[in-house]
Amino acid sequence: MTTARQATGGKPRSAKQSKGMAETPPAAKAAVAPAVSPLAPKTYPALRPLAGVRLSTIAAGVRYQGRTDVLMTVFAPGTQVAGVFTQSKTASAPVEWCRARLKAGTARGLVVNSGNANAFTGKAGMEAARSVAESAAGVLGCRAQEIFLASTGVIGEPLAAEKITAVLSGLAEKGAADGWRAAAEAIMTTDTYPKLATATAEIGGRRVSINGIAKGSGMIAPDMATMLAFVMTDANLPAAVLQGLLDAGVKTSFNAITVDSDTSTSDTLLVFATGKGAQHPAITKANDKRLAEFRRAFDSVLLNLALQVVRDGEGAQKLIRVDVTGAKSDDSARRIALSVANSPLVKTAIAGSDANWGRVVMAVGKAGEPADRDRLRISFGDQVVAEKGARAAAYNEAAATKAVSGREVDIAVDLGLGKGRARVWTCDLTDGYIRINGDYRS
Amino acid sequence: MTTARQATGGKPRSAKQSKGMAETPPAAKAAVAPAVSPLAPKTYPALRPLAGVRLSTIAAGVRYQGRTDVLMTVFAPGTQVAGVFTQSKTASAPVEWCRARLKAGTARGLVVNSGNANAFTGKAGMEAARSVAESAAGVLGCRAQEIFLASTGVIGEPLAAEKITAVLSGLAEKGAADGWRAAAEAIMTTDTYPKLATATAEIGGRRVSINGIAKGSGMIAPDMATMLAFVMTDANLPAAVLQGLLDAGVKTSFNAITVDSDTSTSDTLLVFATGKGAQHPAITKANDKRLAEFRRAFDSVLLNLALQVVRDGEGAQKLIRVDVTGAKSDDSARRIALSVANSPLVKTAIAGSDANWGRVVMAVGKAGEPADRDRLRISFGDQVVAEKGARAAAYNEAAATKAVSGREVDIAVDLGLGKGRARVWTCDLTDGYIRINGDYRS
Repeated sequence: MTTARQATGGKPRSAKQSKGMAETPPAAKAAVAPAVSPLAPKTYPALRPLAGVRLSTIAAGVRYQGRTDVLMTVFAPGTQVAGVFTQSKTASAPVEWCRARLKAGTARGLVVNSGNANAFTGKAGMEAARSVAESAAGVLGCRAQEIFLASTGVIGEPLAAEKITAVLSGLAEKGAADGWRAAAEAIMTTDTYPKLATATAEIGGRRVSINGIAKGSGMIAPDMATMLAFVMTDANLPAAVLQGLLDAGVKTSFNAITVDSDTSTSDTLLVFATGKGAQHPAITKANDKRLAEFRRAFDSVLLNLALQVVRDGEGAQKLIRVDVTGAKSDDSARRIALSVANSPLVKTAIAGSDANWGRVVMAVGKAGEPADRDRLRISFGDQVVAEKGARAAAYNEAAATKAVSGREVDIAVDLGLGKGRARVWTCDLTDGYIRINGDYRS
Repeated sequence: MTTARQATGGKPRSAKQSKGMAETPPAAKAAVAPAVSPLAPKTYPALRPLAGVRLSTIAAGVRYQGRTDVLMTVFAPGTQVAGVFTQSKTASAPVEWCRARLKAGTARGLVVNSGNANAFTGKAGMEAARSVAESAAGVLGCRAQEIFLASTGVIGEPLAAEKITAVLSGLAEKGAADGWRAAAEAIMTTDTYPKLATATAEIGGRRVSINGIAKGSGMIAPDMATMLAFVMTDANLPAAVLQGLLDAGVKTSFNAITVDSDTSTSDTLLVFATGKGAQHPAITKANDKRLAEFRRAFDSVLLNLALQVVRDGEGAQKLIRVDVTGAKSDDSARRIALSVANSPLVKTAIAGSDANWGRVVMAVGKAGEPADRDRLRISFGDQVVAEKGARAAAYNEAAATKAVSGREVDIAVDLGLGKGRARVWTCDLTDGYIRINGDYRS
């Protein structure tokens, strides 16, 4: 008898994932594979090797047989690490493990499994986490504190750590520099496509690279989105600098997306810097001006991955961007933007290509933030639909409908009160979400 | 060209509503009528006449032809009134009208229309409200300040006040003491059944009556639920006493229900006391001990109506009760209970009869309230599914599944931290909700 519970919907992935590095999106195989989100990228970026990073994956049978479910990443000695985690009060054992290990700031290995979140598993859960970390440390010849962990999948089911520890030695041996696509696939749960992003930037005239992978589809809300993301760079940046970049970067990326307002127990975003790429001047502060280009590249990778998570939102048919301007403050703008982005009635209206701006009025009104009905201006795309407390004089139903009928919909709300602004992304709410999350899972 | 937007889903009601006092629920006519919620009451209570209250309804063509859409209630002189309203910052014109009129505390008439919410209609909206009130006052020979108003339906569409003012004189003439069922039907929008409740109580040995009607189905969240409710009594209670009873009573009724976390622009709950029933001792304070029985009866009417709203939640197949105990405070318990009740993942799991307690853990964790994973106890019905930070030792999958498989599901969460407690109700989230709210409306 199984009593399994899965955090993010729980449907077994099919064997659709390519184990190789083929760059053909699964959409091309739609006839035999489960539906891929219509918002999936048309092509996947080819991530190039990163000095100081080796990756390997395996099907360890954590929950299902014949499904790649363990990722091991081995980092060069001296690799620096930073991270942000779920703010859930019921965080998983791996989240607690990583949080406690972050202070030291160095990493030699990362072990991620899908199929079991090792969340709400009591003391046995922390023992399982420790067992995996100690085993990986033994294989890599480092301290357990330098091993970082993440788990995604079933909540409340004891994690069979021995299934993972049994494969670590083999994973370490076969680690390769070019396993990015396979790595992104190994951490998928209800994701319909692997999520990868890459960028390069110069620091002091020397070019370094940033690679990132992520998983996430449901149970997505700030802070954090329900997801795992791992970003790695060959730049030489101390942990404190990484943490500063990360804390700033998540605000406008992973903390600005919501699929269903549900926050998971497992959200983890880790950044690793190996320092094994082109040797550049030493950087000791996140606000160093020589980091400007790197920061832009880093932020673009975070945003790219975050948007891929929204684009793979369970049942998503449309990507919705919500811009709020003219609020009393940025925080106020953010709360209003999230009120719109999390409103089931707004999300179902967009799903139905219904320019239902009355529901946007409602969502602004319920946010509890300063708002003056008679100063409000609401637009769909380039169509102003409401202003000065009523429907816009130039309102055109056909044009407004067209503005909400495509794959990407922009909703703009101007409060007319101040200079506060925020931008968040979400997806529409369709019967696909209900189907994915409402089916009884065996 | 219509640019109509409807607050609560907007599908025209069919002509299914009985105009008479027949007490057969529409379910009996399901073969020809749209589906009635499976959670609808099996029978409707027969509301008896209330001294000092006359009701009448008519199809005035506010938005659709041939559909009863205006309710007029005439009260005996001296009738006292109290109310609570939406906390939306984009409240409708009728809400603003009523709020401003409440201070005087007396009412002679109530005019309610469905089909148009008169919300986000700018200055024209307030002029329309005033026009209806002044017209009703002319008909009844009272001051406009004694006329209360409510509108539900389209947001952002100018209200054609003349369609309503044209019928007021006729409505006042045909007012009858026994039009409760028709009144409840006249205010429906996406409701699948009319909502009525009644109770009696003694005050100082004299029996008085309370009748209530309500509408609401979607856009339901505290505070307030998206709904209109009108409760009337023949007791002799001053406005301040009514307001005190109401402020206390809504906490555990209309402010303890959520369908979709969306709060409307129009939520209105008004209470009228005619003082024309059995003459009882004068009451001047809401906490008067002689009001104990009346308070219980009054609270039962509020709760009854509120639960009927949840039972008619758009797409609802199950009624879910969430009890939180052992929290640091009642407020903390309430926030945790609402986090569970508003979680799309919890609601879809229940829809699928999936005893997915991991999602309850998640929803508790995301509430941001004090919680200790290792003290948490979660039950479905009489089945303890999780305790002490892990799955319950006696966990039984079949029994847990059975506990979430019926029409009514009880979720209990004990935090083990303090004495705070709260109870809220919601419904499951099904593809019916998506269908109702995602279809483009002509």
